[in-house]
Amino acid sequence: MSHSLSPAGPHQDIVISSRVRIARNLESFPFPHLMTPDQSLELVQQVQQAVSAIDPHDHHPFRWIALRDINPVDRQTYVEDHLISPALADNPENGGFFIDSQQRRSMMVNEEDHLRIQCMLKGLQLEEAWKEADQLDDRLGRLLPFAFDETFGYLTACPTNVGTGVRISVMLHLPALTLLGFINGLIHAAGQLGFAVRGVFGEGSEYMGNLYQISNQITLGLQEPEIISNLEDIVLQVIQKERMARKNLLSRQRIDLEDKVHRSLGILTHARRLSRKEAMQYLSDLKLGVSLGMISTCTLDDLHQLIEIIQPANLQKHCGELLREVERDCRRAELVRKILTEGGVSDVHE
Amino acid sequence: MSHSLSPAGPHQDIVISSRVRIARNLESFPFPHLMTPDQSLELVQQVQQAVSAIDPHDHHPFRWIALRDINPVDRQTYVEDHLISPALADNPENGGFFIDSQQRRSMMVNEEDHLRIQCMLKGLQLEEAWKEADQLDDRLGRLLPFAFDETFGYLTACPTNVGTGVRISVMLHLPALTLLGFINGLIHAAGQLGFAVRGVFGEGSEYMGNLYQISNQITLGLQEPEIISNLEDIVLQVIQKERMARKNLLSRQRIDLEDKVHRSLGILTHARRLSRKEAMQYLSDLKLGVSLGMISTCTLDDLHQLIEIIQPANLQKHCGELLREVERDCRRAELVRKILTEGGVSDVHE
Repeated sequence: MSHSLSPAGPHQDIVISSRVRIARNLESFPFPHLMTPDQSLELVQQVQQAVSAIDPHDHHPFRWIALRDINPVDRQTYVEDHLISPALADNPENGGFFIDSQQRRSMMVNEEDHLRIQCMLKGLQLEEAWKEADQLDDRLGRLLPFAFDETFGYLTACPTNVGTGVRISVMLHLPALTLLGFINGLIHAAGQLGFAVRGVFGEGSEYMGNLYQISNQITLGLQEPEIISNLEDIVLQVIQKERMARKNLLSRQRIDLEDKVHRSLGILTHARRLSRKEAMQYLSDLKLGVSLGMISTCTLDDLHQLIEIIQPANLQKHCGELLREVERDCRRAELVRKILTEGGVSDVHE
Repeated sequence: MSHSLSPAGPHQDIVISSRVRIARNLESFPFPHLMTPDQSLELVQQVQQAVSAIDPHDHHPFRWIALRDINPVDRQTYVEDHLISPALADNPENGGFFIDSQQRRSMMVNEEDHLRIQCMLKGLQLEEAWKEADQLDDRLGRLLPFAFDETFGYLTACPTNVGTGVRISVMLHLPALTLLGFINGLIHAAGQLGFAVRGVFGEGSEYMGNLYQISNQITLGLQEPEIISNLEDIVLQVIQKERMARKNLLSRQRIDLEDKVHRSLGILTHARRLSRKEAMQYLSDLKLGVSLGMISTCTLDDLHQLIEIIQPANLQKHCGELLREVERDCRRAELVRKILTEGGVSDVHE
């Protein structure tokens, strides 16, 4: 269990996490989609050597996980915990990743690029996440020959990443803006400013549980500090808007809101079958209720952990068996009921 | 509080109540809609004298309630408890009713007809209800000159009641047939056989809480025992169909049903605002759950009483104040929550 989504840090009532990802490739190898299995293996070995060389300086050493060595449910669990990308999990033969003991930093090998360095922190901590990822990039860059072009900057498999190779994203919980119908306008405005808004599981994923990921689209022609400060600016504006929307709801539709929040609690504590999407929606309502002081029987932290546990792979891992979707819906309902009525996620969260 | 809907008697899990109503008019007066206020008053006095004369023979004496002496909320409470008709409550100046100490029998005076004798019993007890109403009719008929025609039978203000003047109805709870979409077919078939299916508050009222009232349409050319046995036949068939439908749901969609029933319980115990219609729907689900042994924290009797208390007038009477609809929805939610979580309708039901 990663606890990666546990809230903490600045603006934790709205910002779930801040993430910096740096794409790097080694000049001596073709891009992953063109590599032979032998080349993939050799790349992994070179990266492993480099990580071993820098590791002694690190307080939280990295562990290597080859995807072929773990089962599909475990792979999917890492995806759900945002430690690896769906693309990496879909290509388990040659890929793997390093993960530090705190689960703050990870490095995917043989994803779309040779190397994807990631740092994910709780709350709004873009600067800090950038600092940690950048430091790791610097250290590895001294040992590995990263493909770099004087004109274009860092070269990447997909042209959208060329330049800095940096993608910065913030995951936000925006129930009030969603409820008031302001999300589409927000997505449009962010797009105009060069930022993309996606669902909780990245590109192509649905918006679930009123969670939205805002990330930079532009990697070329901008310096990293500029990208970070631009994103931070827009995120701070969104946070302010969400706070205003919550205040608005509280002052104008308090009973409607209390009714909604408590009904969601009622359904979560009584349903015998819960789809992931539905559970995330009701948990989103509950999070809003906790943030606004309407619900005091659980904490934001409990709910964030609960959202993790009820994802399909995490749920199957928790239950210790493979489950069909309809079975998952029943077990999910059972688990949510147990946790919310008997209290504390920690008991089931080993 | 009438407790008139409390279930008991045969088929109490499906049949809420059996009701017999006899329309009678006095030949010496014009029909109510043509009467002067003085005539109305005189009629009331004649009926009162007759009731006083038969009362000594009655174990459960009648009490006279003049509608002009009670406030609109109290009038509406009697309507909700099915002791008087909406039509009588709407014309409080000249009307009133007698009610026995058990609230089994009532007699409306100056409704559409001069006299409407009613007996309402729990469960399927048409014969018994008929016996009690018929006995009362006989006794009063000896003292009052009922308008009767050799060809047509008893004369009534509306031609649909001419003949026996008898309307027999059974109130049924049919959640499984409703869920499986068989209700429209049933209503059509009943119509073909000369029976009408209406909502819980009679003509023009919506179907709420999966409650349906089946009554005879034909009062002319049939003897009372025939009307009763025809209605009993069709009701027994409907009961059988509802039982089959419940069995079907249990064997084929058990989890869906458990999910539905428990979600309804969750919403009822958590909502902060409940409309009457919504509350009745969820309470209907709960009744089904109790009947099928899925819910054991309350009884059918509790739920029937709860359905009575949450009706607009009963609710206002319980709260001791006049309430706007939006306030009623909040107080209704509060009351339902209290009763279902703290247990027992009896505490709030004085």
